[in-house]
Amino acid sequence: MTTSLFGEPIERREDPRLLTGGGRFLDDLGRDALAAAFVRSPHAHARILDIDLSAAVDVEGLVAIYTWEDLPGGVGDPLPLLIPHPAMTHGRTGLPLARDVVRHVGEPIVMVVARDRYLAEDAAELIRVDYEPLPPVVGIENAAAAERLVHEDVPGNVGAHLVQEVGAAPAAIEAAPHVLEFRLDIERSASTPLEGRGVYARWDAADESLRVYSSTQTSTSVRMAVAARLGLPPGKVEVIAPDVGGGFGVKIVHPWPEEVLVPWAARLLDREIKWTEDRREHFVASAHERGQVQFVRVGFDDEGRLLGLDVRILHDHGAYTPYGIIVPIITSTQLLGPYKPGAYRVEFTSLYTNTVIVTPYRGAGRPQGVFCMERTMDRIARHLGRDRAQVRAANFIQPEEFPYDQGLTFQDGRPLIYDSGDYPEMLRKTLALIGWDSFAELREAARSRGRRIGIGLGCYVEGTGVGPYEGGHVEVDTAGRVHVSTGLTSQGQGHQTVFAQIVAAELGVPIEDVYVTTGDTRRFGYAVGTFASRAAVMSGNAVALAARKVRDKALRIAGDALEADPGDLQITDGTVHVKGDATAAIPLRTVAVLANPLRYAFDAEAQRATQFAAPADPAAPPVAPGDEPGLEGRDYYSPVRSTFAAGMHAAVVETDPDTAEIRILRYAVVHDCGRMINPRIVEGQIHGGVAQGIGGALYERMAYDPAGQLLNASFMDFLMPYATEIPRIETDHLETPSPLNPLGIKGAGEAGVIPVSAVLAAAIEDAEGIRVDAMPISPDDLFHLRLRAGTDPSLRL
Amino acid sequence: MTTSLFGEPIERREDPRLLTGGGRFLDDLGRDALAAAFVRSPHAHARILDIDLSAAVDVEGLVAIYTWEDLPGGVGDPLPLLIPHPAMTHGRTGLPLARDVVRHVGEPIVMVVARDRYLAEDAAELIRVDYEPLPPVVGIENAAAAERLVHEDVPGNVGAHLVQEVGAAPAAIEAAPHVLEFRLDIERSASTPLEGRGVYARWDAADESLRVYSSTQTSTSVRMAVAARLGLPPGKVEVIAPDVGGGFGVKIVHPWPEEVLVPWAARLLDREIKWTEDRREHFVASAHERGQVQFVRVGFDDEGRLLGLDVRILHDHGAYTPYGIIVPIITSTQLLGPYKPGAYRVEFTSLYTNTVIVTPYRGAGRPQGVFCMERTMDRIARHLGRDRAQVRAANFIQPEEFPYDQGLTFQDGRPLIYDSGDYPEMLRKTLALIGWDSFAELREAARSRGRRIGIGLGCYVEGTGVGPYEGGHVEVDTAGRVHVSTGLTSQGQGHQTVFAQIVAAELGVPIEDVYVTTGDTRRFGYAVGTFASRAAVMSGNAVALAARKVRDKALRIAGDALEADPGDLQITDGTVHVKGDATAAIPLRTVAVLANPLRYAFDAEAQRATQFAAPADPAAPPVAPGDEPGLEGRDYYSPVRSTFAAGMHAAVVETDPDTAEIRILRYAVVHDCGRMINPRIVEGQIHGGVAQGIGGALYERMAYDPAGQLLNASFMDFLMPYATEIPRIETDHLETPSPLNPLGIKGAGEAGVIPVSAVLAAAIEDAEGIRVDAMPISPDDLFHLRLRAGTDPSLRL
Repeated sequence: MTTSLFGEPIERREDPRLLTGGGRFLDDLGRDALAAAFVRSPHAHARILDIDLSAAVDVEGLVAIYTWEDLPGGVGDPLPLLIPHPAMTHGRTGLPLARDVVRHVGEPIVMVVARDRYLAEDAAELIRVDYEPLPPVVGIENAAAAERLVHEDVPGNVGAHLVQEVGAAPAAIEAAPHVLEFRLDIERSASTPLEGRGVYARWDAADESLRVYSSTQTSTSVRMAVAARLGLPPGKVEVIAPDVGGGFGVKIVHPWPEEVLVPWAARLLDREIKWTEDRREHFVASAHERGQVQFVRVGFDDEGRLLGLDVRILHDHGAYTPYGIIVPIITSTQLLGPYKPGAYRVEFTSLYTNTVIVTPYRGAGRPQGVFCMERTMDRIARHLGRDRAQVRAANFIQPEEFPYDQGLTFQDGRPLIYDSGDYPEMLRKTLALIGWDSFAELREAARSRGRRIGIGLGCYVEGTGVGPYEGGHVEVDTAGRVHVSTGLTSQGQGHQTVFAQIVAAELGVPIEDVYVTTGDTRRFGYAVGTFASRAAVMSGNAVALAARKVRDKALRIAGDALEADPGDLQITDGTVHVKGDATAAIPLRTVAVLANPLRYAFDAEAQRATQFAAPADPAAPPVAPGDEPGLEGRDYYSPVRSTFAAGMHAAVVETDPDTAEIRILRYAVVHDCGRMINPRIVEGQIHGGVAQGIGGALYERMAYDPAGQLLNASFMDFLMPYATEIPRIETDHLETPSPLNPLGIKGAGEAGVIPVSAVLAAAIEDAEGIRVDAMPISPDDLFHLRLRAGTDPSLRL
Repeated sequence: MTTSLFGEPIERREDPRLLTGGGRFLDDLGRDALAAAFVRSPHAHARILDIDLSAAVDVEGLVAIYTWEDLPGGVGDPLPLLIPHPAMTHGRTGLPLARDVVRHVGEPIVMVVARDRYLAEDAAELIRVDYEPLPPVVGIENAAAAERLVHEDVPGNVGAHLVQEVGAAPAAIEAAPHVLEFRLDIERSASTPLEGRGVYARWDAADESLRVYSSTQTSTSVRMAVAARLGLPPGKVEVIAPDVGGGFGVKIVHPWPEEVLVPWAARLLDREIKWTEDRREHFVASAHERGQVQFVRVGFDDEGRLLGLDVRILHDHGAYTPYGIIVPIITSTQLLGPYKPGAYRVEFTSLYTNTVIVTPYRGAGRPQGVFCMERTMDRIARHLGRDRAQVRAANFIQPEEFPYDQGLTFQDGRPLIYDSGDYPEMLRKTLALIGWDSFAELREAARSRGRRIGIGLGCYVEGTGVGPYEGGHVEVDTAGRVHVSTGLTSQGQGHQTVFAQIVAAELGVPIEDVYVTTGDTRRFGYAVGTFASRAAVMSGNAVALAARKVRDKALRIAGDALEADPGDLQITDGTVHVKGDATAAIPLRTVAVLANPLRYAFDAEAQRATQFAAPADPAAPPVAPGDEPGLEGRDYYSPVRSTFAAGMHAAVVETDPDTAEIRILRYAVVHDCGRMINPRIVEGQIHGGVAQGIGGALYERMAYDPAGQLLNASFMDFLMPYATEIPRIETDHLETPSPLNPLGIKGAGEAGVIPVSAVLAAAIEDAEGIRVDAMPISPDDLFHLRLRAGTDPSLRL
């Protein structure tokens, strides 16, 4: 493989277009489309008694109003439960439009279609829904108490319950020299991408086909869902993810009610219809994550080595479980991080509450798991009076132990086996980067000046590139352009750059000639989607494999044309030539003409080069068995299991003794995602993740009142960090290539966010000398912690 | 293979839709589109001095006017020469819009775009073009005389000259006991489908893609041409052939000027534009065929066996040669028919004339070739006083001689080798069907009553299923529907029926579940096109091969699910089951769910059947190497050479002694196209071909005056036979399977038309006792022949 481009920190090719306003996001499309708006439940739990449309029907410009009664079979059926699991004994999904009971604020009840959004909202406001309020279940403890039920037929509000065990953890803990037991709390947060969800659909009556644009992370699955629900052949449904302004998980779920309803109505009315989520809808009617209570019991030896670990998790899953129980499964398995836990037992209970659904948000259960494990490590170190880094090092899986089987079942149903890594070296780099060994001096010096500073450390591994597959297609056209497509979608990650780098390197063409298409079912119909830090691993390897097929074919055809052995040829700058002989050469665009037995050459040069070429062997078919016309190749990358990236973060924070303000003075990251395609983009991903992690650790929480009303459902009330809150992030890399895939890469998309809460909790603890067991932590929280620690010494370290 | 459907004469599935007005032809689309109209040359040969648009620009509703000067590079370049050949030393193509010289009446000069066609025509009429008339070259003899030139730089008006020789024919003829020498004339005719050409284009600015509907026989090639000319990636151009009301060859040519100009303007203006050819445009600005003069010299023995044959052909190619010299090549090689010619020499000269271009029309050079050979056979028989059938039989290739190599190079550049046939048996059937042996009695009996009846016989072989390839794709969706697609187009041949029969039989599904798409580049991007009697052979075998892949995959997956050996399974009525055990079964729709590792099941039954299926082998990738997700298969059929169908026709005609009216009393066809997919459709093809052949033999001619004006350029003046002129056609079949393709089939699309002129000439000759050397022959022609035979005894038999 040519490596001239692979690994280079080139600038993002998509940026000039996006930075100059050239992006085409969902709401930029369909400017003449009708608009949809929704009447949504104002109650967290209520029975619908009546829906009165009479006042709405006179709104000028109104086109249609639909309730559940109007939906045909298929369209009105319960939404699918996407990832079933035997442990999910009581999975429940909602209806596209609620029929009799609503179970969270924001649940859709009526769809209104009108000439524009203003009129649609006007009409929606005039629709009167009579409710009988039902008692809401809000908060994990209320759900577990089960005095009230979210679903009448789900006893105890328990949707799922799963235990995984490696060894006999309770016994090992009992027998351990040291035992600690404690509780941790993580509150809800959410993806909150800059662009919310949205769908725009149009029906082509002549073609009997449907075009759906959706701001989605999985256009192929939206296609499958829409085709199945509307009874259309998949080939008659085109789903395109245009420019997408961030996803972070919330756009994986499918079909969202709107993704079924808008296309259905567009076909029924034979009119273009668009719906763009507003910010309040995003807060109350999309999805959240993170909310868990964890009960930890750990036994360890004098060096801090784990002997037994027992974790019980109560997971808040919201009102429905359309996406299954991936999040608590990931927490349960990934919390082990780079460590050998000794005997391990983990148990989670997934609880229904009358709040919006919980689905993966960047990190997807890992931040909670890492919070649990890293808080445990810090507690052990404090308990033993040992250095926190040394305790971690004592528990590391060693480089020579890979592949390392944790003995658990991963989210994909396959064994949890780490493929590669070097955790001791990573720790060494992290401690060096942050200046760990000399920090005690600094802390004391600061303290002597009345300042409180602390240092924290957090380690994690992340299973990335989860299967089952992703495909790639590479085509060289007769103008020499290289068209790369893969089915997964882009939400701003730089796929136009990294996939082009891969293909340009594999094929030996200038990157300027490479055009990348993602998330367009017209170009590639099979895909899984963009989530789980899988795009680069899965589609990156798929396009590489496809490009290698194209390269092999090009060399074979050029070999025939140049009467040379393909092994003696190479491709440079888009031209195939004999190694060491620049005169014996043929451009790829001409190879593309020769690759189709029709030999359609529309430029004079190619026509000269190909039209009187020696006739093919008369005894051979023009298209050899197993071959196809055209200079193109398609292939799939389908791994036997995930590849495990890893990272260690360290931070120095300062807390204000008076105001309890928390300021991050330094933030250091050492990251290992195997071979990097583009270090600039990897760092961008890490920086973005850390920023999102800082939001989750210090600012963001979903403030539900006891009635299930989200009190801060706007960016006026929900705090997201600005650039002013994010410190410069110091980054270093380690590259332990994955042995599982041809390019040796691992995923990096979620990495940054994962350990931030753990790291900052540790640093605040270190600065304050009081225990931090819950995140996020605001100045107000810290102030109250200080007050409580003043009266309760057990809270002091 | 299940054969329950293959070979059955089921009714055409497309007919209910088409017969009840449900067809969607080009002009049914784009009702809101702008309309294009063209200013075309009224002169056969002229220099353009000036184009004055001033009067046109004020037409209300006018949108744009374009001359050649307005066209950018690519769009304005000379049209491609599609099939180059070394013998075509002076190939010439026109410009999309003429620049300085026009070379036939109807050549486009200005494109007008307006709100509707009326306004566009109004504006076109107001455009004044000043011409300097140049001397026109009209007719083969004028072209050969070369006193005037069509292209200044083409000496002698000779575009191409080709000689093929097997043995030394002149010497063999010299040495033969009998020699005959004569001239034959065939006039021009044309495809004249019910629906003319047409193109409708729209640009999607958001998607930067172009949708082009064209009434074409080759949508994939139109796509390649449009993409190349407009500088667009092929993936951004979708070309769809909607319902097409006949093609017969004229819609193979591409790109027609309008196919480039309309899409170009649609993109430039970002408006939908449509152009529908009117009938006069079709006559003067599309394409003709047939026109040839042949000089024959033949030597033979006392039994009429050919010893040497020398044919010189002057071929009228019209003003340009965009499609190359396929037509005279076919005449040169296919005229040999079922015979062994002894030594053979054929030479053709392709001549330019100031008439519309010549491209293949159903039969494509074969009717002329068969006219030559069958007239020769009849002459030999008369010369020797032998039975015409016996002379033919004496020259037949025998069944045991296959594969039979004629020693020539076929139109595809490959050796002309016949694959299979049984000509003696076919002759026996033909003579029996028409009652050959007893006809002399009837003729004499009629004559004794003052009536003139005659019998004629004509034999041909036809190379069908020409390569290089065609592809097929078969997909079973999760609703159990089977979607079949192939890249070639349909013009009414019944592809919805026959391709579905093939796939239903191969897959074991009800034909009602099979949906066929043709001619849509979105569904299948690579194809050659529908012509040369190739659709059934090429795409039929391609979809069969694709269906076999699907079948194999379905059995493999079902075998896993049912824990059975795939060899013990069969598919019946869309369900895979263990042979002899109806309880162990899984429907194909569920197999389709299992075929995608995502296992997206949107119906409850499939979800139950698949969601908790045993986990895959953890050591195996979910998509095995070389496999792909989905229950689908794609394959190509690419033959080493063409397969040779054959047919023999016999007819009885009556000529009126007074009016010279010619009436066909009986018409018999014995046809061999190998294994028949659907005999009903084969017979429909034959009947249609015979009708078209009768038109060519008795009614249709292109009447050019010396100035190059086509005097009969409308259906008021150009005679096509009505149903009243077509006799009942008696049909019998022989099936000698082709050994070249998996289904053993041969093409049947052109068959009917090929020998009709030869057969009717022979029958008229037999009735009249005077030589018929030129076709078509009208009552007026026959009357004048009689007059000349009265004064010139050499014209009498």
